[in-house]
Amino acid sequence: MERVPILKIGDILLVSIQVDMSDQTAVALQEDLAERIVATGCHGVIIDITALDIVDSFVGRMLSTIASISRVLDAETVVVGMRPAVAITLVELGLSLNGIRTALNVERGMELIAADREREYDEFDDSSDAEPTASP
Amino acid sequence: MERVPILKIGDILLVSIQVDMSDQTAVALQEDLAERIVATGCHGVIIDITALDIVDSFVGRMLSTIASISRVLDAETVVVGMRPAVAITLVELGLSLNGIRTALNVERGMELIAADREREYDEFDDSSDAEPTASP
Repeated sequence: MERVPILKIGDILLVSIQVDMSDQTAVALQEDLAERIVATGCHGVIIDITALDIVDSFVGRMLSTIASISRVLDAETVVVGMRPAVAITLVELGLSLNGIRTALNVERGMELIAADREREYDEFDDSSDAEPTASP
Repeated sequence: MERVPILKIGDILLVSIQVDMSDQTAVALQEDLAERIVATGCHGVIIDITALDIVDSFVGRMLSTIASISRVLDAETVVVGMRPAVAITLVELGLSLNGIRTALNVERGMELIAADREREYDEFDDSSDAEPTASP
Protein backbone atom coordinates (compact mmCIF):
# COMPACT_ATOMS: atom_id res chain seq x y z
CA MET A 1 0.00 0.00 0.00
CA GLU A 2 1.23 3.47 -0.86
CA ARG A 3 1.63 5.93 1.97
CA VAL A 4 1.42 9.64 1.42
CA PRO A 5 4.48 11.32 2.96
CA ILE A 6 4.03 14.03 5.58
CA LEU A 7 6.68 16.76 5.61
CA LYS A 8 7.28 18.96 8.65
CA ILE A 9 8.20 22.57 7.88
CA GLY A 10 8.42 24.68 11.00
CA ASP A 11 5.03 24.65 12.72
CA ILE A 12 3.30 23.09 9.73
CA LEU A 13 2.77 19.60 8.36
CA LEU A 14 2.67 19.51 4.57
CA VAL A 15 0.94 16.75 2.65
CA SER A 16 1.08 16.64 -1.14
CA ILE A 17 -1.50 14.26 -2.55
CA GLN A 18 -0.36 12.87 -5.88
CA VAL A 19 -1.68 9.32 -5.97
CA ASP A 20 -5.21 8.11 -6.42
CA MET A 21 -6.59 7.71 -2.91
CA SER A 22 -8.01 4.32 -2.00
CA ASP A 23 -9.94 3.64 1.19
CA GLN A 24 -6.81 2.18 2.77
CA THR A 25 -4.52 5.03 1.72
CA ALA A 26 -7.01 7.57 3.04
CA VAL A 27 -7.33 5.85 6.42
CA ALA A 28 -3.54 5.44 6.66
CA LEU A 29 -3.06 9.15 5.88
CA GLN A 30 -5.58 10.15 8.56
CA GLU A 31 -3.84 7.98 11.15
CA ASP A 32 -0.33 9.08 10.17
CA LEU A 33 -1.35 12.72 10.22
CA ALA A 34 -3.03 12.48 13.63
CA GLU A 35 0.07 10.78 15.03
CA ARG A 36 2.41 13.37 13.54
CA ILE A 37 0.32 16.27 14.88
CA VAL A 38 0.52 14.81 18.38
CA ALA A 39 4.22 13.90 18.06
CA THR A 40 5.35 17.26 16.67
CA GLY A 41 2.84 19.63 18.28
CA CYS A 42 2.35 21.32 14.92
CA HIS A 43 -0.54 23.77 14.66
CA GLY A 44 -1.13 23.69 10.94
CA VAL A 45 -1.80 21.13 8.24
CA ILE A 46 -1.48 22.07 4.58
CA ILE A 47 -2.83 19.66 2.00
CA ASP A 48 -1.64 20.31 -1.52
CA ILE A 49 -3.89 18.99 -4.28
CA THR A 50 -2.08 20.52 -7.29
CA ALA A 51 -1.64 17.06 -8.75
CA LEU A 52 -5.32 16.10 -8.56
CA ASP A 53 -7.36 16.40 -11.75
CA ILE A 54 -10.57 15.43 -9.99
CA VAL A 55 -11.85 15.90 -6.45
CA ASP A 56 -14.84 13.59 -6.10
CA SER A 57 -17.07 13.09 -3.09
CA PHE A 58 -14.69 10.46 -1.68
CA VAL A 59 -11.69 12.81 -1.68
CA GLY A 60 -13.90 15.66 -0.48
CA ARG A 61 -15.06 13.55 2.48
CA MET A 62 -11.46 12.55 3.23
CA LEU A 63 -10.38 16.20 3.31
CA SER A 64 -13.29 17.03 5.64
CA THR A 65 -12.39 14.16 7.95
CA ILE A 66 -8.73 15.21 8.06
CA ALA A 67 -9.78 18.80 8.85
CA SER A 68 -12.07 17.60 11.66
CA ILE A 69 -9.42 15.31 13.19
CA SER A 70 -6.82 18.09 13.02
CA ARG A 71 -9.19 20.58 14.61
CA VAL A 72 -9.73 18.27 17.59
CA LEU A 73 -5.95 18.09 17.92
CA ASP A 74 -5.69 21.92 17.83
CA ALA A 75 -4.37 22.15 14.28
CA GLU A 76 -5.80 24.21 11.44
CA THR A 77 -6.18 22.59 8.00
CA VAL A 78 -5.83 24.48 4.73
CA VAL A 79 -6.25 22.90 1.30
CA VAL A 80 -4.05 24.55 -1.34
CA GLY A 81 -3.31 24.30 -5.04
CA MET A 82 -6.81 23.56 -6.28
CA ARG A 83 -7.02 23.82 -10.06
CA PRO A 84 -9.71 26.04 -11.58
CA ALA A 85 -11.31 23.03 -13.30
CA VAL A 86 -11.46 21.16 -9.99
CA ALA A 87 -13.22 24.09 -8.31
CA ILE A 88 -15.78 24.25 -11.12
CA THR A 89 -16.44 20.50 -10.97
CA LEU A 90 -16.77 20.61 -7.18
CA VAL A 91 -19.49 23.23 -7.37
CA GLU A 92 -21.24 21.43 -10.22
CA LEU A 93 -21.24 18.25 -8.14
CA GLY A 94 -22.75 20.19 -5.26
CA LEU A 95 -19.75 19.54 -3.00
CA SER A 96 -18.93 22.63 -1.00
CA LEU A 97 -16.05 21.25 1.11
CA ASN A 98 -17.72 22.32 4.33
CA GLY A 99 -15.36 23.25 7.13
CA ILE A 100 -12.35 23.24 4.86
CA ARG A 101 -10.35 26.39 4.30
CA THR A 102 -8.55 26.92 1.04
CA ALA A 103 -5.67 29.05 -0.20
CA LEU A 104 -4.15 29.49 -3.65
CA ASN A 105 -0.72 28.09 -2.84
CA VAL A 106 1.42 26.75 -0.01
CA GLU A 107 2.85 30.15 0.91
CA ARG A 108 -0.60 31.72 1.27
CA GLY A 109 -1.74 28.72 3.25
CA MET A 110 1.16 29.22 5.64
CA GLU A 111 0.31 32.91 6.00
CA LEU A 112 -3.31 32.02 6.72
CA ILE A 113 -2.34 29.59 9.47
CA ALA A 114 0.19 32.01 10.98
CA ALA A 115 -2.36 34.86 10.99
CA ASP A 116 -4.98 32.63 12.64
CA ARG A 117 -2.51 31.55 15.26
CA GLU A 118 -1.62 35.11 16.08
CA ARG A 119 -5.26 36.11 16.41
CA GLU A 120 -5.88 33.22 18.79
CA TYR A 121 -2.98 34.29 20.99
CA ASP A 122 -4.26 37.87 20.99
CA GLU A 123 -7.71 36.72 22.07
CA PHE A 124 -6.16 34.61 24.79
CA ASP A 125 -4.15 37.62 25.98
CA ASP A 126 -7.24 39.82 25.92
CA SER A 127 -9.32 37.41 27.93
CA SER A 128 -6.60 36.93 30.53
CA ASP A 129 -6.22 40.72 30.74
CA ALA A 130 -9.96 41.12 31.25
CA GLU A 131 -10.20 38.78 34.21
CA PRO A 132 -6.93 39.06 36.10
CA THR A 133 -8.61 38.10 39.38
CA ALA A 134 -10.20 34.93 38.03
CA SER A 135 -7.03 32.89 38.49
CA PRO A 136 -6.02 31.92 42.03
CA MET B 1 1.06 11.56 -18.10
CA GLU B 2 1.46 12.36 -14.45
CA ARG B 3 3.26 15.56 -13.52
CA VAL B 4 5.09 15.95 -10.25
CA PRO B 5 3.93 19.17 -8.53
CA ILE B 6 6.49 21.81 -7.60
CA LEU B 7 5.72 23.83 -4.47
CA LYS B 8 7.29 27.22 -3.80
CA ILE B 9 8.07 27.94 -0.16
CA GLY B 10 9.96 31.18 0.29
CA ASP B 11 13.25 30.95 -1.61
CA ILE B 12 12.89 27.21 -2.15
CA LEU B 13 11.15 24.93 -4.61
CA LEU B 14 9.96 21.70 -3.03
CA VAL B 15 9.36 18.53 -5.01
CA SER B 16 7.96 15.43 -3.36
CA ILE B 17 8.42 12.39 -5.57
CA GLN B 18 5.72 9.82 -4.87
CA VAL B 19 5.02 8.19 -8.21
CA ASP B 20 7.15 5.77 -10.18
CA MET B 21 9.19 7.89 -12.52
CA SER B 22 8.97 7.10 -16.21
CA ASP B 23 11.24 8.64 -18.83
CA GLN B 24 8.50 11.10 -19.74
CA THR B 25 7.71 12.08 -16.15
CA ALA B 26 11.40 12.62 -15.43
CA VAL B 27 11.92 14.84 -18.49
CA ALA B 28 8.74 16.79 -17.68
CA LEU B 29 9.92 17.32 -14.10
CA GLN B 30 13.32 18.58 -15.28
CA GLU B 31 11.69 21.02 -17.69
CA ASP B 32 9.08 22.22 -15.18
CA LEU B 33 11.71 22.69 -12.51
CA ALA B 34 14.06 24.64 -14.78
CA GLU B 35 11.18 26.90 -15.82
CA ARG B 36 10.07 27.47 -12.22
CA ILE B 37 13.64 28.30 -11.10
CA VAL B 38 13.89 30.93 -13.81
CA ALA B 39 10.36 32.26 -13.21
CA THR B 40 10.65 32.51 -9.43
CA GLY B 41 14.36 33.20 -9.00
CA CYS B 42 14.49 30.61 -6.23
CA HIS B 43 17.95 29.61 -5.04
CA GLY B 44 17.18 26.19 -3.63
CA VAL B 45 15.56 22.97 -4.76
CA ILE B 46 14.57 20.31 -2.24
CA ILE B 47 13.62 16.89 -3.55
CA ASP B 48 11.84 14.71 -1.04
CA ILE B 49 12.10 10.96 -1.64
CA THR B 50 10.42 9.73 1.57
CA ALA B 51 7.89 7.84 -0.52
CA LEU B 52 10.45 5.96 -2.60
CA ASP B 53 11.22 2.38 -1.60
CA ILE B 54 13.90 2.02 -4.23
CA VAL B 55 16.31 4.46 -5.84
CA ASP B 56 17.71 2.69 -8.89
CA SER B 57 20.24 3.98 -11.40
CA PHE B 58 17.48 5.65 -13.42
CA VAL B 59 16.22 7.71 -10.49
CA GLY B 60 19.81 8.36 -9.38
CA ARG B 61 20.65 9.73 -12.82
CA MET B 62 17.50 11.84 -12.83
CA LEU B 63 18.45 13.37 -9.47
CA SER B 64 21.95 14.10 -10.76
CA THR B 65 20.59 15.75 -13.90
CA ILE B 66 18.20 17.90 -11.89
CA ALA B 67 21.05 18.95 -9.59
CA SER B 68 23.23 19.86 -12.60
CA ILE B 69 20.47 21.85 -14.33
CA SER B 70 19.67 23.69 -11.09
CA ARG B 71 23.34 24.49 -10.50
CA VAL B 72 23.60 26.12 -13.92
CA LEU B 73 20.57 28.20 -12.98
CA ASP B 74 22.20 29.23 -9.68
CA ALA B 75 20.08 27.00 -7.46
CA GLU B 76 21.34 24.45 -4.95
CA THR B 77 19.73 20.98 -4.88
CA VAL B 78 19.31 18.91 -1.72
CA VAL B 79 17.75 15.44 -1.64
CA VAL B 80 15.92 14.76 1.62
CA GLY B 81 14.01 11.96 3.30
CA MET B 82 16.07 9.02 2.11
CA ARG B 83 15.13 5.84 3.95
CA PRO B 84 17.90 3.81 5.60
CA ALA B 85 17.16 0.82 3.35
CA VAL B 86 17.43 3.03 0.27
CA ALA B 87 20.83 4.31 1.39
CA ILE B 88 22.08 0.75 1.93
CA THR B 89 20.83 -0.41 -1.47
CA LEU B 90 22.37 2.62 -3.18
CA VAL B 91 25.80 1.80 -1.81
CA GLU B 92 25.40 -1.90 -2.59
CA LEU B 93 24.51 -0.98 -6.18
CA GLY B 94 27.62 1.18 -6.36
CA LEU B 95 25.58 4.36 -6.92
CA SER B 96 27.11 7.21 -4.98
CA LEU B 97 24.79 10.04 -6.13
CA ASN B 98 27.73 12.18 -7.23
CA GLY B 99 27.21 15.90 -6.96
CA ILE B 100 24.01 15.50 -4.95
CA ARG B 101 23.76 16.83 -1.42
CA THR B 102 21.50 15.13 1.06
CA ALA B 103 19.82 16.04 4.34
CA LEU B 104 17.69 14.03 6.73
CA ASN B 105 14.50 16.04 6.32
CA VAL B 106 13.04 19.10 4.63
CA GLU B 107 13.85 21.43 7.53
CA ARG B 108 17.53 20.44 7.55
CA GLY B 109 17.63 20.76 3.78
CA MET B 110 16.31 24.30 4.09
CA GLU B 111 18.93 25.13 6.71
CA LEU B 112 21.65 23.73 4.47
CA ILE B 113 20.56 25.88 1.54
CA ALA B 114 20.21 28.99 3.71
CA ALA B 115 23.68 28.46 5.23
CA ASP B 116 25.24 27.96 1.79
CA ARG B 117 23.56 31.08 0.51
CA GLU B 118 24.87 33.10 3.43
CA ARG B 119 28.41 31.84 2.92
CA GLU B 120 28.28 32.78 -0.75
CA TYR B 121 27.21 36.30 0.10
CA ASP B 122 29.99 36.56 2.68
CA GLU B 123 32.57 35.45 0.13
CA PHE B 124 31.20 37.95 -2.34
CA ASP B 125 31.48 40.68 0.27
CA ASP B 126 35.03 39.63 1.17
CA SER B 127 36.22 39.61 -2.42
CA SER B 128 34.70 43.01 -3.11
CA ASP B 129 36.34 44.31 0.09
CA ALA B 130 39.70 42.89 -0.92
CA GLU B 131 39.85 44.52 -4.31
CA PRO B 132 38.06 47.81 -3.99
CA THR B 133 40.17 49.36 -6.76
CA ALA B 134 39.51 46.62 -9.28
CA SER B 135 36.14 48.05 -10.24
CA PRO B 136 36.12 51.22 -12.30
